[in-house]
Amino acid sequence: MSLHHPLRLGMVGGGKGAMIGGVHRIAARLDNAFTLVAGALSSTPARNAESAAEAGIAPERTYDDFTEMARAEAARPDGIEAVAICTPNHLHFPAAKAFLQAGIHVICDKPMTSTLADARDLARVAEASEALFVLTHNYSAYPQLRLAREMVARGDLGKLRLVQVEYAQDWLAEPSDSKQAEWRGDPARAGAGGAIGDIGTHAFQLARFVSAELPSHLLADLTSFVPGRAVDDNAQVLLRYASGAKGSLWCSQVAPGTENGLKLRIYGEKAGLEWSHVEPETLLFTPLGEPRRTLRRGATSMAGSRVPPGHPEGYLEGFANIYAEAAAAIRAHQRGEEAPTLLPGIRDGIEGLCFIEGCIRSARAGNTWINLAEVAQNG
Amino acid sequence: MSLHHPLRLGMVGGGKGAMIGGVHRIAARLDNAFTLVAGALSSTPARNAESAAEAGIAPERTYDDFTEMARAEAARPDGIEAVAICTPNHLHFPAAKAFLQAGIHVICDKPMTSTLADARDLARVAEASEALFVLTHNYSAYPQLRLAREMVARGDLGKLRLVQVEYAQDWLAEPSDSKQAEWRGDPARAGAGGAIGDIGTHAFQLARFVSAELPSHLLADLTSFVPGRAVDDNAQVLLRYASGAKGSLWCSQVAPGTENGLKLRIYGEKAGLEWSHVEPETLLFTPLGEPRRTLRRGATSMAGSRVPPGHPEGYLEGFANIYAEAAAAIRAHQRGEEAPTLLPGIRDGIEGLCFIEGCIRSARAGNTWINLAEVAQNG
Amino acid sequence: MSLHHPLRLGMVGGGKGAMIGGVHRIAARLDNAFTLVAGALSSTPARNAESAAEAGIAPERTYDDFTEMARAEAARPDGIEAVAICTPNHLHFPAAKAFLQAGIHVICDKPMTSTLADARDLARVAEASEALFVLTHNYSAYPQLRLAREMVARGDLGKLRLVQVEYAQDWLAEPSDSKQAEWRGDPARAGAGGAIGDIGTHAFQLARFVSAELPSHLLADLTSFVPGRAVDDNAQVLLRYASGAKGSLWCSQVAPGTENGLKLRIYGEKAGLEWSHVEPETLLFTPLGEPRRTLRRGATSMAGSRVPPGHPEGYLEGFANIYAEAAAAIRAHQRGEEAPTLLPGIRDGIEGLCFIEGCIRSARAGNTWINLAEVAQNG
Amino acid sequence: MSLHHPLRLGMVGGGKGAMIGGVHRIAARLDNAFTLVAGALSSTPARNAESAAEAGIAPERTYDDFTEMARAEAARPDGIEAVAICTPNHLHFPAAKAFLQAGIHVICDKPMTSTLADARDLARVAEASEALFVLTHNYSAYPQLRLAREMVARGDLGKLRLVQVEYAQDWLAEPSDSKQAEWRGDPARAGAGGAIGDIGTHAFQLARFVSAELPSHLLADLTSFVPGRAVDDNAQVLLRYASGAKGSLWCSQVAPGTENGLKLRIYGEKAGLEWSHVEPETLLFTPLGEPRRTLRRGATSMAGSRVPPGHPEGYLEGFANIYAEAAAAIRAHQRGEEAPTLLPGIRDGIEGLCFIEGCIRSARAGNTWINLAEVAQNG
Repeated sequence: MSLHHPLRLGMVGGGKGAMIGGVHRIAARLDNAFTLVAGALSSTPARNAESAAEAGIAPERTYDDFTEMARAEAARPDGIEAVAICTPNHLHFPAAKAFLQAGIHVICDKPMTSTLADARDLARVAEASEALFVLTHNYSAYPQLRLAREMVARGDLGKLRLVQVEYAQDWLAEPSDSKQAEWRGDPARAGAGGAIGDIGTHAFQLARFVSAELPSHLLADLTSFVPGRAVDDNAQVLLRYASGAKGSLWCSQVAPGTENGLKLRIYGEKAGLEWSHVEPETLLFTPLGEPRRTLRRGATSMAGSRVPPGHPEGYLEGFANIYAEAAAAIRAHQRGEEAPTLLPGIRDGIEGLCFIEGCIRSARAGNTWINLAEVAQNG
Repeated sequence: MSLHHPLRLGMVGGGKGAMIGGVHRIAARLDNAFTLVAGALSSTPARNAESAAEAGIAPERTYDDFTEMARAEAARPDGIEAVAICTPNHLHFPAAKAFLQAGIHVICDKPMTSTLADARDLARVAEASEALFVLTHNYSAYPQLRLAREMVARGDLGKLRLVQVEYAQDWLAEPSDSKQAEWRGDPARAGAGGAIGDIGTHAFQLARFVSAELPSHLLADLTSFVPGRAVDDNAQVLLRYASGAKGSLWCSQVAPGTENGLKLRIYGEKAGLEWSHVEPETLLFTPLGEPRRTLRRGATSMAGSRVPPGHPEGYLEGFANIYAEAAAAIRAHQRGEEAPTLLPGIRDGIEGLCFIEGCIRSARAGNTWINLAEVAQNG
Repeated sequence: MSLHHPLRLGMVGGGKGAMIGGVHRIAARLDNAFTLVAGALSSTPARNAESAAEAGIAPERTYDDFTEMARAEAARPDGIEAVAICTPNHLHFPAAKAFLQAGIHVICDKPMTSTLADARDLARVAEASEALFVLTHNYSAYPQLRLAREMVARGDLGKLRLVQVEYAQDWLAEPSDSKQAEWRGDPARAGAGGAIGDIGTHAFQLARFVSAELPSHLLADLTSFVPGRAVDDNAQVLLRYASGAKGSLWCSQVAPGTENGLKLRIYGEKAGLEWSHVEPETLLFTPLGEPRRTLRRGATSMAGSRVPPGHPEGYLEGFANIYAEAAAAIRAHQRGEEAPTLLPGIRDGIEGLCFIEGCIRSARAGNTWINLAEVAQNG
Repeated sequence: MSLHHPLRLGMVGGGKGAMIGGVHRIAARLDNAFTLVAGALSSTPARNAESAAEAGIAPERTYDDFTEMARAEAARPDGIEAVAICTPNHLHFPAAKAFLQAGIHVICDKPMTSTLADARDLARVAEASEALFVLTHNYSAYPQLRLAREMVARGDLGKLRLVQVEYAQDWLAEPSDSKQAEWRGDPARAGAGGAIGDIGTHAFQLARFVSAELPSHLLADLTSFVPGRAVDDNAQVLLRYASGAKGSLWCSQVAPGTENGLKLRIYGEKAGLEWSHVEPETLLFTPLGEPRRTLRRGATSMAGSRVPPGHPEGYLEGFANIYAEAAAAIRAHQRGEEAPTLLPGIRDGIEGLCFIEGCIRSARAGNTWINLAEVAQNG
């Protein structure tokens, strides 16, 4: 895709036993956009060394500490140009801060931080830094969801009325002591949100991305179905928009038989759109009174595509789109240019933390409406 | 299916221009369970005569008034054994009352009445009558939803956690002056509920039928999206159950591209069930950690079936199951027997009106939780 | 649907233990087009009496012999106006002949006869009779397949290139001694074809109906997979059309997991069409280079529909369309009018027997091409 | 996935304007199994230099000639360990021969050669070489098709009866002068087969891979629907197996609305399997008389998976499985070990050319049965 050599990438977190770190590494190299050359992958030295070796990182660029890594890499002439942050949530903030302040571009997993206060602080750090900050809300980089956004924007649906989004999983339907489950259930590391933080923020961001509307209010009912769980594993959320549209968001990690069931339906006065992660290359367009149309990836444009329709692309390719676009943005920045981009960033991160905070306030207040603008102002 | 001749049926409402009257007539004769011999089908004499002739009803048993019909038919030795009531909602109560008091069995469309007060009164009338009262919540007679109920009851899902039900249509997405739309939008005839009465009650009854649990509380957000509409055309409802389960109900008549989209998903500790009206003969069973299983109509039992799996049955056949079971119940009653039945009746009707009333109270109070038992007691 | 009273119908075959007889009875009454008043349903007197009583036929119009029935009913002033023939295949011919010669309209199950010679004879009998002959190739009366035919006819697909049709079942995957399986496996009663006669003729007729082209040649490979079976239970057939189009037909009764899997795909120079019995109300239209469109029953026209889209209709409703159209044709005939109709009849019957005969000749000759016009001329 | 650094890879073909070259490059690096360091990507020097630069290949390892490349790389201490061959078909043979004779492992696109004679010669070259030869029949590396093979092998289906495979596309429905279309339509470069070579060989190999049975005979009807096309664009093929099983294969490049529609259905005495490229992570298992089961990628094993079920993997990941397994095989070979592998190779290549040759002979002989063993012996 490019005449350039890949950018030099570092990684924080994502060592042995992690799930999302491997995804970031594949996404980074899939389009040859980045090459991984430095890392602080695990929190214990022995495990860190082992993880780095497996990832092909040289010992001299394997760091036990991300602060040291930021300093050392910034000082090298061949230092990393960007860093991927894949730690548990509570470390996103200090790690991102360290690299941004060192002038190194950051590609960070979601939610952006574990608290809204940290999110605000990070926003200030990012503002003060020359470096770019990208948040991996990867679903918004799927070609058919980009197309959905365009269709909404150009009025194919008419004035929006309804936004129905859901994200259902079943991997936490029973108590689990997997590494993945363990930190996600610990408010000190994951933040106060359980399902709402882990997958609810994806659903919220996606609905907001496609509709281009941020809800003004929400009302949430949070539940922890599994005994002993310290955070929510299910949430029913009602949404209201300043435009008069209404919405609902359901996220669950206890729905047996669902896998990674993100689904978005948007209805306007003139038409509807429907997308499901089960068949991510298909966008259904349903103009009122006309036959349903199946819009397939790559059929009209190859943007965000590597192979023609009928050759299924999916999660890793969507994630790689984030990395490919991040590389393009970084190169533009290196040339002193500023290019328009649809990449999620600080604003999405703040909004995500406001969503989490809003849900928790609503639940605590007995499921009342919370004004999200007020949460944003006094979070 | 039977050695018996069909039962004699009368009909109130369902004349020319009606939609559901024709459905009742087909359902009544599909299994040869009833033969239509008397009626008061339309509200004006000329239209009534025309409607009756089209339906094959003799002029001498064509009545301009349902009160007179109840009286006259009760007096005939060959009088009708049951009556189907398919009028707009506000006439369900007086018509049902007239026939029940005349000792004639009633098969009534939903919602049972247009007000909760009428529903209570009708319950008293039915209590005092020997005659049976059946409410055509037809979806609960689909074989795969009967199977779903059995599976929940025998514990295949474990303790229930979540009930997600939705019913989406698009035929009222724009202002309409069709006969169907007209009375449904008039609170004097339809009752105070729009979408919640017309389709929400179906969704509510179905979830309750399959789960065998009545929600203890609900919280509703009602919207009238189409300008000038006097009733809701969209509702987002949260549900709570005494058992600790949670639920959500979405009904809409303004979702472009949906047709008659009733969908039910139930999740327990051990498994989930999923059913959609788009493919009504399929029930998906998703035990945690095992492959999804597709349970098809007729594959293990032919109850409620006329033809083997693969020969699609649908709406009319499901509706006919109600009529076939009503005929069986009436015959048992005629023999002085009492047979257990899953037919919806007075209890479902009261619950449906409580649902409508609860939604309206919640919406008026700013979307707060309403205790449904209190609604039932002081409605 | 009509101001008329139902027509008087008799039935031959379809007694207790039969499957298709019940379908004919439901189809006949679903739209109130016919009322069943006479019959010779079973071959033994006791069973016949019992079957007739169950079907609500009076004892005086219950006949042990269809010849006697034709005579007696033709002589009554209130005699049957039409007869449905649902016997095993070998009796279609003598029964149809008896009623046609008595001037009674015939609605006959498929294949039309058990031999091509009988089919030719029946054609001559029908030619000489005033009465109408309808063959229940019911699938060609599904609304979306009618629409498909119209689309092909008006050139929406461009010049046709490919016709792919299949019909797969699994109910004969193991040896069976059910009544249904027993006569179908006996060449003396079913004719020389097994799967090709029972379901292959449906697939062949449907492809021919929608494409409006009769293949000029076929090449068939027939198999009897189940040991001891005297007829084919699987057939792979290649088709050639005079227009240059090619086709293939697969029918099987030994494909585990299929139910009643009729599926048709037609491709022309400009577009394709796809229809599957699993979702019979959907026709997929795939114009080259444009998004796939989902054409749903009832969305643009209510012909052949009783309820709006989203209220699933299926097999019985499609079958009832044949009866409703047959009734309309009979009424027109009674008025001395001749109305254009899409009802399958003698021509379809002859073509079906030529298909069976052609397959058998091709298989016997080592899977060589057979000219169907020659089969038709010297069968 | 590995503690090792990636293997050094070269590439022949796959320069600018090619489609499959980019796929090979992504597949090679997706799991970090290979790093591309040398190439002869295009046939003209200028284009070659440009293509190599885009792919990140250093100028000193950019070759205008694959023979020279094989020689030079074999001589370098850091020379390539394997080469990917992605040229038009007629160059597969000389290129593969050059590298195999230089002791460099070969990963070659399909069909293996453009003639059966070349395939035989290549088999002899491979036999004489120490180096490994892998043929990228990528579909056989999809996890659910590996699972299908296992299920057949362990008898889950019982004795096989039917193999139905199809591969339908529409990109050649009209005359095309794209680079992709152009060489595929030229027998001098593609070989004598059109659709049968380009996609028919995939379908044939997949059916053979999953069933573990090679057909003994085939009968083919080949068509060139598009005027002026020198090769077939549609093929209907009947298959016979020594075991008594039957099959059919349909491949087409002129079926509007299909994309890359590979589909496999296998039926045995006890059960069936169904897989479609549209949803490649799902394998349907249909045991006779039991509910259909949906077997999803990753649900029981993560072999060939990178992310949990519900995170769609597809074409590139399947292709990458070939590369990852090739790397594992090469490493084992470097250690002097021989590891069992399911990788397609010379045998698949020979069988593919026999399929093409058999189809052409059958078509020329008027669609008669061809004995594939005889083709293999005297091709």
